[in-house]
Amino acid sequence: MIAVGAAGSVGTVETQYLELPQPVQLDCGQQLRQVRVAYETYGTLSPRRDNVVLVCHALSGDAHAAGFAKSPGDESTRDGFGAQDRDGAAGKGLGWWDGMIGPGKAFDTDRFFVVSTNLLGGCQGTTGPSSIDPATDRPYGPDFPVITVADMVRTERAFLTELGIERLAAVAGGSLGGMQAFEWAILFPDQVDAVVSIASTHALHPQGVAWNAIAREAIMRDPAWQGGRYYGTGRAPDAGLGVARMVGHVTYLSAAALSDKFGRRLQFSDDIRYTITEPEFQVESYLRHQAESFVRRFDANSYLFTSRALTYFDLARQYGGGSLARALAGVSARTLLIAFSSDWLYPPAASREIQEALRALGKPVEFHVIDAPYGHDCFLLEELRQTPLVRRFLAGAGARG
Amino acid sequence: MIAVGAAGSVGTVETQYLELPQPVQLDCGQQLRQVRVAYETYGTLSPRRDNVVLVCHALSGDAHAAGFAKSPGDESTRDGFGAQDRDGAAGKGLGWWDGMIGPGKAFDTDRFFVVSTNLLGGCQGTTGPSSIDPATDRPYGPDFPVITVADMVRTERAFLTELGIERLAAVAGGSLGGMQAFEWAILFPDQVDAVVSIASTHALHPQGVAWNAIAREAIMRDPAWQGGRYYGTGRAPDAGLGVARMVGHVTYLSAAALSDKFGRRLQFSDDIRYTITEPEFQVESYLRHQAESFVRRFDANSYLFTSRALTYFDLARQYGGGSLARALAGVSARTLLIAFSSDWLYPPAASREIQEALRALGKPVEFHVIDAPYGHDCFLLEELRQTPLVRRFLAGAGARG
Repeated sequence: MIAVGAAGSVGTVETQYLELPQPVQLDCGQQLRQVRVAYETYGTLSPRRDNVVLVCHALSGDAHAAGFAKSPGDESTRDGFGAQDRDGAAGKGLGWWDGMIGPGKAFDTDRFFVVSTNLLGGCQGTTGPSSIDPATDRPYGPDFPVITVADMVRTERAFLTELGIERLAAVAGGSLGGMQAFEWAILFPDQVDAVVSIASTHALHPQGVAWNAIAREAIMRDPAWQGGRYYGTGRAPDAGLGVARMVGHVTYLSAAALSDKFGRRLQFSDDIRYTITEPEFQVESYLRHQAESFVRRFDANSYLFTSRALTYFDLARQYGGGSLARALAGVSARTLLIAFSSDWLYPPAASREIQEALRALGKPVEFHVIDAPYGHDCFLLEELRQTPLVRRFLAGAGARG
Repeated sequence: MIAVGAAGSVGTVETQYLELPQPVQLDCGQQLRQVRVAYETYGTLSPRRDNVVLVCHALSGDAHAAGFAKSPGDESTRDGFGAQDRDGAAGKGLGWWDGMIGPGKAFDTDRFFVVSTNLLGGCQGTTGPSSIDPATDRPYGPDFPVITVADMVRTERAFLTELGIERLAAVAGGSLGGMQAFEWAILFPDQVDAVVSIASTHALHPQGVAWNAIAREAIMRDPAWQGGRYYGTGRAPDAGLGVARMVGHVTYLSAAALSDKFGRRLQFSDDIRYTITEPEFQVESYLRHQAESFVRRFDANSYLFTSRALTYFDLARQYGGGSLARALAGVSARTLLIAFSSDWLYPPAASREIQEALRALGKPVEFHVIDAPYGHDCFLLEELRQTPLVRRFLAGAGARG
């Protein structure tokens, strides 16, 4: 057992930006010129540069994974279910995985140099559809190339090269972040020592594909989307993006979590008020709040392109001719899989399929299902229970190194 | 055991209409004047008028529950998952519960006089928000009073009185239809001999409230909704209603059903095409089709008012001061509850709560969970497995009568 010391904060951090010197070649055949990457780092790079952990974020995250933002926006991105209630993080600019990254934490910054980037296609500093297209001097909008998770990873690879980092002690993430971790282990097998994939999958199940399709439909059917060319028009598809977020948010939670937190409690304690347009139940009011705070910080086109990449991700199709085992055959990293019992969007069964495929290939893999009630958002909420699993796993990585 | 004879069709039927002579008093305190009810009947009313089964439909159903429509629209309302595949019902105008209603079927028209009405607030012939408000000579739109399931049942009561029917041998329905059945048993306990409530609940769980809220938001955020006054403007919130339907549709199915039917199969077999705006997966294309066919036949305001009523429904709150047992204390009907193992919108647990409450009160109740994979839509699909349960139960009703 690894003792967990007194966990601390990485303190105040500031997002930095780096322009890649080369274009990024994309799966679709196009290339992106002038790619900028937003990033943060926590801890100290070792002289041998062998202590790097790359942390990859989920659909709506950003580079600010830990610590307090130097210039916090009006809302933290740490807006997972219950997160605000627990520690009042919103408004303080606390990173989305602050509970996992810091001195003595799961990704221990006393030991590791943790790097976090905003993903390609995002809207929090890394090049995405709201960025200026150098070919036209206007935002890309719908002309942004359709990207894949592999394209995100190639961008991360190019970015780390600029930082002088060739190898990763680990690549880690939850949800779409976990997909990036697998993609790393397959695309760059000799550069990744360990994969930590949490609440993730080798391919989103069809219901998840459906939810993502509905979210994108909600955005694209909003007339304010204007075919994706809404920048500078004074209108944005906030209405549609809000609906997309509500759909997403409910899929990130479990039915039991919503029952525990809200039940069928009415918004006004006396009685129903016979209204169609106003919230009657607390859960309705909560969803509206989630939508409103999301549209203030997120770009609708980024949602479209990132959601699309997430649905494309399918290791068996991409690398195995339909076989997950064949896709994973070249992986040399050790793998830690964590899933949550109540996560119905990225259910434990998908992680188990990965475990079984890796095991059959004779590759080192550990799989834990944490019994927790909050659904997919557990990967943001159950830090204390993930921490010993991750610390012990990474200690093994150190031993091997 | 009741032998199931050769099941037949009720043949070609035509929806009829009846104007209520009296206004309907509503829970909200308002009243509705000039209420029209669309209905169909199957079988023959007995001389003693004691063989009447009232069938109540779900959110998007109509009065056409069985047989072939005399003037079928371009689409059947029988658009549950897989229904089209199984029997090519779409386009033939087959009723939404044709598998359950007819000679030799669950609701045996050789024995029962089955009455089916379009519910209050609907858009298939019964007065709803798209009907003309006699006070203004324009469609009600958002000025339609906010109705409840009890209001639907009071309308059904008034309608049956016009048909000369005082007692019901049974009131039956699935989903929102099952809610109406319970409401009947509580509001008119001495007029209902038996309740058949399938895939229903005493109160929608908070996640279901959330899905309904999202569906309504999708409609109301569509600028073409125009505050609900879109009739006659040449625009309707089809975009938002389509998103609402997609959300609803996925909640009516199980994740396993979507996996079995579509998997992650691509729309074009060769490869992904790198597109944001077009469907890439078959499940995406299917959802678009569902949305398109729904908006052709359904009114957005009806969706809003009916969905709202569905979320309000809460027997314990309405009739028990928070106690389900107290709410059911006055019920004299025998009750048959059927739920489906894969139904996560109306899970078996809710029916079990009703069973336990009725049992504790010493009231006759039967509860069956059918192990079936299709989710909530099972009540429309698993007719053959429901049939013996319903027939046996109704035979008991006959014995008691």
